[in-house]
Amino acid sequence: MAYQLGTNFKLFTLNSNPELAQEISELLGHDLGKSSIAHFSDGEVQIHIEESVRGADVYLIQSTSQPGSEHVMELLIMIDALKRASVNKINVVIPYYGYARQDRKASSREPITAKLVANMLEKAGANHVITMDLHAPQIQGFFNVPVDQLLGGKILEKHFYDKNLDNAIVVAPDNGGLGRARKLANHLDVPIGFIDKRRMHPDEPETVNIVGDIKGKNVIIIVDIIDTATTVAAAANVLVENGAKAVYACCTHAVLSGDAIQKINDSALTELVVTNTIRVGDEKRIPKLTILSVAPLLAEAIEHVHNEKPVTPLFE
Amino acid sequence: MAYQLGTNFKLFTLNSNPELAQEISELLGHDLGKSSIAHFSDGEVQIHIEESVRGADVYLIQSTSQPGSEHVMELLIMIDALKRASVNKINVVIPYYGYARQDRKASSREPITAKLVANMLEKAGANHVITMDLHAPQIQGFFNVPVDQLLGGKILEKHFYDKNLDNAIVVAPDNGGLGRARKLANHLDVPIGFIDKRRMHPDEPETVNIVGDIKGKNVIIIVDIIDTATTVAAAANVLVENGAKAVYACCTHAVLSGDAIQKINDSALTELVVTNTIRVGDEKRIPKLTILSVAPLLAEAIEHVHNEKPVTPLFE
Amino acid sequence: MAYQLGTNFKLFTLNSNPELAQEISELLGHDLGKSSIAHFSDGEVQIHIEESVRGADVYLIQSTSQPGSEHVMELLIMIDALKRASVNKINVVIPYYGYARQDRKASSREPITAKLVANMLEKAGANHVITMDLHAPQIQGFFNVPVDQLLGGKILEKHFYDKNLDNAIVVAPDNGGLGRARKLANHLDVPIGFIDKRRMHPDEPETVNIVGDIKGKNVIIIVDIIDTATTVAAAANVLVENGAKAVYACCTHAVLSGDAIQKINDSALTELVVTNTIRVGDEKRIPKLTILSVAPLLAEAIEHVHNEKPVTPLFE
Amino acid sequence: MAYQLGTNFKLFTLNSNPELAQEISELLGHDLGKSSIAHFSDGEVQIHIEESVRGADVYLIQSTSQPGSEHVMELLIMIDALKRASVNKINVVIPYYGYARQDRKASSREPITAKLVANMLEKAGANHVITMDLHAPQIQGFFNVPVDQLLGGKILEKHFYDKNLDNAIVVAPDNGGLGRARKLANHLDVPIGFIDKRRMHPDEPETVNIVGDIKGKNVIIIVDIIDTATTVAAAANVLVENGAKAVYACCTHAVLSGDAIQKINDSALTELVVTNTIRVGDEKRIPKLTILSVAPLLAEAIEHVHNEKPVTPLFE
Amino acid sequence: MAYQLGTNFKLFTLNSNPELAQEISELLGHDLGKSSIAHFSDGEVQIHIEESVRGADVYLIQSTSQPGSEHVMELLIMIDALKRASVNKINVVIPYYGYARQDRKASSREPITAKLVANMLEKAGANHVITMDLHAPQIQGFFNVPVDQLLGGKILEKHFYDKNLDNAIVVAPDNGGLGRARKLANHLDVPIGFIDKRRMHPDEPETVNIVGDIKGKNVIIIVDIIDTATTVAAAANVLVENGAKAVYACCTHAVLSGDAIQKINDSALTELVVTNTIRVGDEKRIPKLTILSVAPLLAEAIEHVHNEKPVTPLFE
Amino acid sequence: MAYQLGTNFKLFTLNSNPELAQEISELLGHDLGKSSIAHFSDGEVQIHIEESVRGADVYLIQSTSQPGSEHVMELLIMIDALKRASVNKINVVIPYYGYARQDRKASSREPITAKLVANMLEKAGANHVITMDLHAPQIQGFFNVPVDQLLGGKILEKHFYDKNLDNAIVVAPDNGGLGRARKLANHLDVPIGFIDKRRMHPDEPETVNIVGDIKGKNVIIIVDIIDTATTVAAAANVLVENGAKAVYACCTHAVLSGDAIQKINDSALTELVVTNTIRVGDEKRIPKLTILSVAPLLAEAIEHVHNEKPVTPLFE
Repeated sequence: MAYQLGTNFKLFTLNSNPELAQEISELLGHDLGKSSIAHFSDGEVQIHIEESVRGADVYLIQSTSQPGSEHVMELLIMIDALKRASVNKINVVIPYYGYARQDRKASSREPITAKLVANMLEKAGANHVITMDLHAPQIQGFFNVPVDQLLGGKILEKHFYDKNLDNAIVVAPDNGGLGRARKLANHLDVPIGFIDKRRMHPDEPETVNIVGDIKGKNVIIIVDIIDTATTVAAAANVLVENGAKAVYACCTHAVLSGDAIQKINDSALTELVVTNTIRVGDEKRIPKLTILSVAPLLAEAIEHVHNEKPVTPLFE
Repeated sequence: MAYQLGTNFKLFTLNSNPELAQEISELLGHDLGKSSIAHFSDGEVQIHIEESVRGADVYLIQSTSQPGSEHVMELLIMIDALKRASVNKINVVIPYYGYARQDRKASSREPITAKLVANMLEKAGANHVITMDLHAPQIQGFFNVPVDQLLGGKILEKHFYDKNLDNAIVVAPDNGGLGRARKLANHLDVPIGFIDKRRMHPDEPETVNIVGDIKGKNVIIIVDIIDTATTVAAAANVLVENGAKAVYACCTHAVLSGDAIQKINDSALTELVVTNTIRVGDEKRIPKLTILSVAPLLAEAIEHVHNEKPVTPLFE
Repeated sequence: MAYQLGTNFKLFTLNSNPELAQEISELLGHDLGKSSIAHFSDGEVQIHIEESVRGADVYLIQSTSQPGSEHVMELLIMIDALKRASVNKINVVIPYYGYARQDRKASSREPITAKLVANMLEKAGANHVITMDLHAPQIQGFFNVPVDQLLGGKILEKHFYDKNLDNAIVVAPDNGGLGRARKLANHLDVPIGFIDKRRMHPDEPETVNIVGDIKGKNVIIIVDIIDTATTVAAAANVLVENGAKAVYACCTHAVLSGDAIQKINDSALTELVVTNTIRVGDEKRIPKLTILSVAPLLAEAIEHVHNEKPVTPLFE
Repeated sequence: MAYQLGTNFKLFTLNSNPELAQEISELLGHDLGKSSIAHFSDGEVQIHIEESVRGADVYLIQSTSQPGSEHVMELLIMIDALKRASVNKINVVIPYYGYARQDRKASSREPITAKLVANMLEKAGANHVITMDLHAPQIQGFFNVPVDQLLGGKILEKHFYDKNLDNAIVVAPDNGGLGRARKLANHLDVPIGFIDKRRMHPDEPETVNIVGDIKGKNVIIIVDIIDTATTVAAAANVLVENGAKAVYACCTHAVLSGDAIQKINDSALTELVVTNTIRVGDEKRIPKLTILSVAPLLAEAIEHVHNEKPVTPLFE
Repeated sequence: MAYQLGTNFKLFTLNSNPELAQEISELLGHDLGKSSIAHFSDGEVQIHIEESVRGADVYLIQSTSQPGSEHVMELLIMIDALKRASVNKINVVIPYYGYARQDRKASSREPITAKLVANMLEKAGANHVITMDLHAPQIQGFFNVPVDQLLGGKILEKHFYDKNLDNAIVVAPDNGGLGRARKLANHLDVPIGFIDKRRMHPDEPETVNIVGDIKGKNVIIIVDIIDTATTVAAAANVLVENGAKAVYACCTHAVLSGDAIQKINDSALTELVVTNTIRVGDEKRIPKLTILSVAPLLAEAIEHVHNEKPVTPLFE
Repeated sequence: MAYQLGTNFKLFTLNSNPELAQEISELLGHDLGKSSIAHFSDGEVQIHIEESVRGADVYLIQSTSQPGSEHVMELLIMIDALKRASVNKINVVIPYYGYARQDRKASSREPITAKLVANMLEKAGANHVITMDLHAPQIQGFFNVPVDQLLGGKILEKHFYDKNLDNAIVVAPDNGGLGRARKLANHLDVPIGFIDKRRMHPDEPETVNIVGDIKGKNVIIIVDIIDTATTVAAAANVLVENGAKAVYACCTHAVLSGDAIQKINDSALTELVVTNTIRVGDEKRIPKLTILSVAPLLAEAIEHVHNEKPVTPLFE
């Protein structure tokens, strides 16, 4: 694939996911811009851009994954440096938009951090956002600049389509994810179910109820984010206890914080399929874990955006 | 109830729901401010505020219900007039926040009108928003000014609690509303279910599947908005066909557009319970329809906000 | 006339004046962009742009004529959709800028709606405004983005120049329009006059006094806007009663609200000449009405702006 | 008159019209705040506020009269100093709003300086504007902050009412000022007229035509601003040549630039009545010139604004 | 000391320096507001304010010290939460303003992070900043909101004044700090000197030259920040090698990153005097280190600001 | 030198330094744009741009030198005119950025005028700033738009390098300028010194102490700005009194206000070398004064910026 990107195209990465950026760079046939993102002795972020960017259309790749504050600050500071270096346009490519779960006041006097970060990005100078699977699609509306949201669903779907599991069913681990489950089920042409959890009285234990017939079936759980893995591991166990033949899980964003990997390893899960929107450290690469790359999708999106072609075909 | 509101408190209404405003005014023991909202011969909105508002803390009541464009413009123009008349603070009370369903780009090149309206309100001069049951809670994050969101759920819940239906079950008419259904079910201490609709192949008919045991039961459907009533009427019919004893439905926002009332009348629904966040015209007041007032909740919220008391207790 | 407009040129229209937009499109030899501007069942504006506009310089045609709120909201929502679809530049072409008469606080506590709308357009994302005959030229200063104001005067003037009425005089129907009258009179090389109306005491009737010699003459009345037509119809009658041979009237913006057409039909006016900045419905197309098209002027202005040529020659 | 102004009231003046500020200060019974507005050796404005203003509501008096750039900069710098000194609210009192005649693009590629100055004032930190007789009332709409516009007309009118000239007529020196003339004429219960000037062909001399009967009458000319005095002096001469008994002129803003005073002295004018919105230097105080003070009006307006009373009664 | 702070006064702290906040709280006789600043499993900052703050004037204490990104994000998120909880005013008290050394583009394509953070604070909703010893006083101008800068110099000066070292001299460790040294020297009534370092040719070693007579004297080094301590330790050693009797050093902001404490311990320094604008961990509390508290100064400043008294007396 | 500047390049000047602009124009081989910057009779700035600038990248040359207010206003008004005339980009070239010394609150309740002017420029519409030797480099951070700061040091240095004074030393006239002195000394490969001034007790006279060996040497004083020349003249005298062979002084910005030229003439200075960032009037061109042109540096910078080449090489 030979992309035409022109002379004012520049691709930069920060520290959260340099492997993904490198992969995108190779797919685009365009080297990453030279810059150093180091720290002063006291830990302050020190950024220096080592080539001229005057008049450039910059694509800056950074997931705001753990450590989130550090990665957000890196991103803001780099945007400031680019803006002051007279670039033409700053496109921030945020494969994983962190803080996305703080997208509303769940109770009184809480922040809406996902909106705060959007405001900070715009104020710093971001002109355009390319991202993937926002936790809530409404986060697009937190921005006044254009947002192109790509979806990891097709990548995950292709994996299971190729796998061709017989007698499969897609299960949402709770009621919130039914839409996502339905979409995958439709694509694979299999039924869906969900796990209904409820506590009838404050002093009674929680009741877990599997809605849908999973007996003897290959169950595929789909969610957008796996963070502590508590929910997905528990779901896998419950499903197997209730007669599922095997349980697979998949998600776009593999946060995998705390002892998530341990929980997954210990669970009844057969396979966990994730993408590399968040960098998965070597210590997390257990055999059960399959990592699919979003680099081809992002590379294509960047090329379309830069050459002013519609990105719609990329998620249809 | 005797509220202390001070001398700089002013309450104004626009044209979308003057009865609700009047009810709030009476509950607060404070007359509505004098203003005329008329139209020029060519239909342009003509607003004149007929008493001094200099230095006032104004509470301005307007749902952006049908006709939405007219009601949005009325609101923006009134805010402009208030701002230029040197008020201290403009609190907009929007019982029904219209355009809320356009809160994300559902497909390419769509507007996010719910965000646009938020931007317009802020730019015009709104300092604070009081609203009810936003279609998505993330809409709070479309604003940079504080938003106090009240919930109609307690009002609806009390209605069914008092009704004390035996052998009841709460049913969500589709997967999106399961959270809301669960909340009501927990409060009433009854089970929940939902209606699963799916088309397995593009050339097959849609399958409708009722998840949960509704046979011989009093079913309560809960949603946030009823607009065309197509979904709720169809759900009621399906539930009765499948053995439900009776079907009740409830919602906060009664849009009831097109022939919604006809559909409800013709359906198997026993009762539809709504609130008056949107003015319900006389022609829609059929016997099946029960209208509960949100005026006491809004009056109390306004009093709390004005006297700088927390509003949290109002929805706990 | 074959215009060179380049590949990033896009022309869109909304609902207020599709015939004018079509005419401009044909003159430019460039098809209107595909989009649908419909309404949801509850009347909310539903916009979908049906072709890629990424990187485009868009020219969006919409008069904010009756129903004004609807047309303003359509315009704002379309701008939002275009901005979020990553266009390069949004040029709004507003042949008739509604709400222009609310351009100052005429009395205390009134809005300045013409400024509010300007703020809304800029906040939504408009980058440039092309308009015609603003009610007050100061409205240009309500914007921070560039405004190109075109004038319908030359079109009206050419009509009367070609008509070559003998023994003509231009009359302003009140003191406010003397400048405009003088301009037309100079162009036609004829004298001017005006109608002086005054009430000397609150309990006396209004005195109408014709300044200038109109006896036996062909009188041409010129104003910028004709709305209810009360003034112009009364002026025509008074002029004829005082000896005018015939009375013609002309204006750029034919609001013609209420029973304006009836009044014109019943009046002593021989001809009313207007332009199509506002769409004139079939029910208004009486024999006395002559409609001149502003499409050639707007098409040329759009071409000049797009190709970065001065627009000054268009109104000199 | 004993005004209650409270402890957070502060009144400051800059250099354009200290006498007027002093007069207002005395009427309000409140000393001017201590500050020094000097210049560095290179002419840069040097401002120092010599008393604490933390939390104060400041009223800052400055006409942006000649030298306009200097007076605008003084005003902006003082606003910056006040803002950074943690005042609560900055009310700028601009008796004469300079640059007001550059309020539209009269020809291509001109600035709209009156809007620029409004933007600068707001950006610097002005929260509220009190001004008098804006050259065009639309300039109110150049601001997003509230503007209270006071009118000098009542002061001028009272002067001529008390003078009780017999057989008077009010004449506008050109067509633009007919509205103002009509207002004064109505108040004095006398007729109006205007001077019509036109050049029929580029190679012919300008024709001057007096509309209205001025023979043997006491003519009163009214305009908002007298700058070079060319128009008013010429008008006076023409009127006398055409039989006027005597000619009086009046205006709110006495710019009187260049040799205006000489022209007035040499003209047929009997009296020129102005206000002190602009400081009139001693060298301009010829016997023909009557100066009326706007201090009582401004003092009352400041008191009303500060105590949150309507200012409407001040110009009704 | 009994301060009157009123009912709308609220004092909150974040995680960077809770001991200092506690000390200020005790001095003011006002408890710290209840809030929890925790982290989600993936490290995202989780803030919850546990008491009503509606209408409050909040003083929020946070140094943006190491880890800087974390502490900046905590601050921004808390401001967002407070703003959305309808506080009246947010005063951020930043004893140590981190990133202050990135206050200009030292070479091409560098960020100006100190300005970025200022922009972020304002955009998030900060209304007022109280800080100490900005690395460059120009950083005040990075803000549009008022900044009150307090100085630690008087605290350090009092320490040495009380110590009453005989035969003392104040020495600046490089040319940049001469102003600060001169100020202390004047206060203590002792001479000054400085250390001149220069490399005459790129291939020659750096020359260190002590300007001023330090032989047999008690030398006091003063700087604003001590970070790696390399400079100050080297200076102490050179001074002792050149005959100084003893060397004391002092600074306001004790960053003390990396092995700074080790370097100080190993150096010829007799005493290092710092303040607690940055929390000094137990592992850094070596005998040579003297820590003076800025709490009394900050408490008094907060009280002055809240009660709208000038803060000038605090640093005169 | 033949520069390629393209068709959308436009170069304009205002009134502060037309000779410099002319020189730059000639070096670039591109005529200055046609515009008139005159004054109305009352002194208001009147700007008219006499050629189309639609779509142009404009470079606008103006030092904000004495009279500063006038030159700042000219600049703001021209930016407004250009913006409203639909230019693509406004690059302001400010060889001398006036008001730069008011860059912080030196005492309470002072303005930060250098920031105010930056805000005004951005608000008016400036997109990019090219300037020279800012009094403090932090002023770059007063802007959110990119700032390219050029340095006059290389021009001054070349002058003295070519002069090849034997036995030279660079001396800073006070402690603030040591950095600048060191830089020049390093370039010329000569030693440095400085003049230490101090008042030990309020009732003692100031002590002046020359640090460094200047006996029999050719002393070169370097500062960024010479305003009243008091400091530099006194320094020259003191240096000669203390044995200097000859004293030369140099600076980038020759403000030379008041009787500065007289002081220089009367002083022991042999030569004062300045640049033409500020226009030096004929009355100031004494034999001792050498004026070097910054036109080649600015012309090259403009060309680099316009053709999107790095400007870094210009000051390395």
